[in-house]
Amino acid sequence: MRQDLNGKELLGVASQLADAAGAVILPYFRGDALSTSNKLEGGFDPVTVADRAAERAMRDLLAQLRPQDGILGEEYGTQEGTSGLTWVLDPIDGTRGFISGTPTWGTLIALADEQGPLMGVIDQPYIGERFVGGFGVADVTGPHGAKTLQTKTTTALSDAILFTTFPEVGSPAERAGFQSVAEQVQLTRYGMDCYAYGLLAAGQVDLVIEAGLQPYDIQAPIAVIQAAGGVVTDWQGNPAHNGGRCLAAATPELHAAALELLSGV
Amino acid sequence: MRQDLNGKELLGVASQLADAAGAVILPYFRGDALSTSNKLEGGFDPVTVADRAAERAMRDLLAQLRPQDGILGEEYGTQEGTSGLTWVLDPIDGTRGFISGTPTWGTLIALADEQGPLMGVIDQPYIGERFVGGFGVADVTGPHGAKTLQTKTTTALSDAILFTTFPEVGSPAERAGFQSVAEQVQLTRYGMDCYAYGLLAAGQVDLVIEAGLQPYDIQAPIAVIQAAGGVVTDWQGNPAHNGGRCLAAATPELHAAALELLSGV
Repeated sequence: MRQDLNGKELLGVASQLADAAGAVILPYFRGDALSTSNKLEGGFDPVTVADRAAERAMRDLLAQLRPQDGILGEEYGTQEGTSGLTWVLDPIDGTRGFISGTPTWGTLIALADEQGPLMGVIDQPYIGERFVGGFGVADVTGPHGAKTLQTKTTTALSDAILFTTFPEVGSPAERAGFQSVAEQVQLTRYGMDCYAYGLLAAGQVDLVIEAGLQPYDIQAPIAVIQAAGGVVTDWQGNPAHNGGRCLAAATPELHAAALELLSGV
Repeated sequence: MRQDLNGKELLGVASQLADAAGAVILPYFRGDALSTSNKLEGGFDPVTVADRAAERAMRDLLAQLRPQDGILGEEYGTQEGTSGLTWVLDPIDGTRGFISGTPTWGTLIALADEQGPLMGVIDQPYIGERFVGGFGVADVTGPHGAKTLQTKTTTALSDAILFTTFPEVGSPAERAGFQSVAEQVQLTRYGMDCYAYGLLAAGQVDLVIEAGLQPYDIQAPIAVIQAAGGVVTDWQGNPAHNGGRCLAAATPELHAAALELLSGV
């Protein structure tokens, strides 16, 4: 952990960013059927409008609170900073979940330096659930209170619950790699978007395997899962914070077992 | 709608049943990793313990409030009544979602006569969301207030969002039938358990296709979706309340389009 940073202050900024994004996004979530089907403002769909407005709200806050830091956002790209720190923002991760009305999308907020993410937040404002990891913190607050995040102790694939967005994502070769793991595990489930990473950190599921990620899709999950005791890499065992393929596991042993099947892809 | 019944009273009973079930189940949901992995009480896993305790709580309430009615429950079978009405109970529908920590499982409560369900409740107590349909009511209450349930107006498969538990369920022939619809729609998503029926009733998704259902899996969803303007049948266009295969659609036109592809299975 970097001792030169004020983790408490930075966690507080992340929390304010998540609050601001949620306030902007929620009115667009589960709009009535007609408005959800139609295009709004200049031909964009509601999820795009909400995505952009939420990122603007977060950038406005950062301009006030952390003008020295850089920003990497899904919608408005890169803004250089002078501090060596970058806020990595994905206002609505899981847009297919969003348009379907499932509370599985989330606002992803990470703070990174050149080594990767230092801290991350996965926020699901419809449920009112927030997973936070980094600077010595690993917790989730939700409708039933606060809990410490701690990954499960599972070490064998045959005992593992695997979550993924496959078969919706990935190349044929990536799907085959994913399938080689899916065939070994106890249970595979789909469709949870970024919420799956929160469940891994919370000790509910054991593995998340994805492909085709952007840096802003994975930096907050990496920070949350590592803070909870889990392991996240790409499919070769290298850092995953630049996006692409990701393997997140509850324990080093389980990670190694899945990596053996994925590393040939 | 049957005019001889006191719908308001019966909706109130259903609401009390859902409250009772939720209070029993929630302490077992997202237990810490160790207790969720281990077997409890006499070798049963936490979801089975919660399922049984919740059904007992609902049966106890019905013994007080509606002793003249019959009961069909997932865990404790059939109890005959004298009123011609039967309460159809599934305390935890979506046990795989439950053990994975996803708030996609639900408590399903229906009231049926010999013609099928008259009223139904889909309750998700972790989110605090309850979908109710029947006796002139079609509404959802949740973390962001109350809304009227109304299915979407989609008529073409190419505009439809399809939800399902496939590929986890169904025979190979049923999976092929499902796939023939999935190939035509705009978006297919997975893993939502009974929550998908609530989203259909709420005008968020257009189709739900399932197989291998029990009567207690589908009677509450039928009542909720029909109250919201949707259509639910089996894959031959017949009533689906005895279980098996189910096709739920936002509009009659969309239902007909999907039925054409499924009816040959």
